[in-house]
Amino acid sequence: MRNILDRNQNRANEVRRLLAEEKVLMVNIISSPGAGKTTLLERTLGELNTKFRIGIIEGDITTDRDARRLQKFNIPITLINTEGGCHLDSHSISKVLDTFSLKDLDVIFVENVGNLVCPSQFDLGENFKLAVVSTAEGDDKPAKYPMLFREARAVLLNKVDLIPYTNFRMLNFRKDMEKINRNIPVFELSCTRGDGLGAWFEWISSRITENCNRE
Amino acid sequence: MRNILDRNQNRANEVRRLLAEEKVLMVNIISSPGAGKTTLLERTLGELNTKFRIGIIEGDITTDRDARRLQKFNIPITLINTEGGCHLDSHSISKVLDTFSLKDLDVIFVENVGNLVCPSQFDLGENFKLAVVSTAEGDDKPAKYPMLFREARAVLLNKVDLIPYTNFRMLNFRKDMEKINRNIPVFELSCTRGDGLGAWFEWISSRITENCNRE
Repeated sequence: MRNILDRNQNRANEVRRLLAEEKVLMVNIISSPGAGKTTLLERTLGELNTKFRIGIIEGDITTDRDARRLQKFNIPITLINTEGGCHLDSHSISKVLDTFSLKDLDVIFVENVGNLVCPSQFDLGENFKLAVVSTAEGDDKPAKYPMLFREARAVLLNKVDLIPYTNFRMLNFRKDMEKINRNIPVFELSCTRGDGLGAWFEWISSRITENCNRE
Repeated sequence: MRNILDRNQNRANEVRRLLAEEKVLMVNIISSPGAGKTTLLERTLGELNTKFRIGIIEGDITTDRDARRLQKFNIPITLINTEGGCHLDSHSISKVLDTFSLKDLDVIFVENVGNLVCPSQFDLGENFKLAVVSTAEGDDKPAKYPMLFREARAVLLNKVDLIPYTNFRMLNFRKDMEKINRNIPVFELSCTRGDGLGAWFEWISSRITENCNRE
């Protein structure tokens, strides 16, 4: 396992160097199955597609369903089917990087395989990880699956429109997050209804612009 | 990987032999994080605790939160913290089996780590796997994560009370299930509200009784 992680880290460092040269930001989006990663991407592309040059890497065990959902945006999308594999790794990213013309991109969003555990252990060469979690999963997810929430640069709490119909308690969620990682922003969103998206667009736009303007 | 799976299989066979000798049924419950495994167990224990002798193995990455939720039933519960591990394996089960007095049990429910991918690849020595999936995860989960749905003896579609507030389409779910595994029962449940539990209790009771009455 140590060996696998070491080799993954080396390749991730190469990917990071390549992206840095071309000033392309890479964001690694991680969540449980069905927390809303693809809907988040649909919303985000709808807003940012005219402002930034965006590429997508879709990680899925099988099927091209998510990739097809994003085709309407007419941007470069590369699909990685892991064929049973429970996470993306830096080798799979490295292999598909030349399907993009990096000098023509500002940002690549990577939608990882739906899994709250394994993807958080594998550096893909991204600038940062993003944790997406749905209120329907319950308020105890950060406490029970802390790795991702420690690693992530921001947490997107999705499906806040479902809170009235579940036993999700925001106070419990916030209290646990406070213990695990008090320094990161938590965005409360409903990607289907639209709640909270403005703050998220602003935050992610700043990260992309910052990266483009780096010396 | 092949090596790991082979060793896991050998130990799983030992576990299965031990349980068969004592006529204890073992059920391996698998789902994404927050699909409702623990609430399902609360409901199931509430109903079956007086009829059968039940033991629980709680698999969690960290914390004893789920185990504590089941303490009120006053039955044997053994907690396995995987400390980062993304699934239980037959070695971890084998190690804790002697915390139970098997001759005094009819069934052991194993709540696996919340993960729709890795746990489906590891035989624990169970009689069968149970797939739990929440409507809030979307209707495309069987198609996108087919391994578990192929392996499982039954599917528990939980949180049907949330359907009116999501874009879950039962027809899509059923159509995909039909393609992946047309021969297994799909129970439509709401473990919080109580929908559909009668049919589930009846089905699982039959499986336990069947196993007790085996020659």
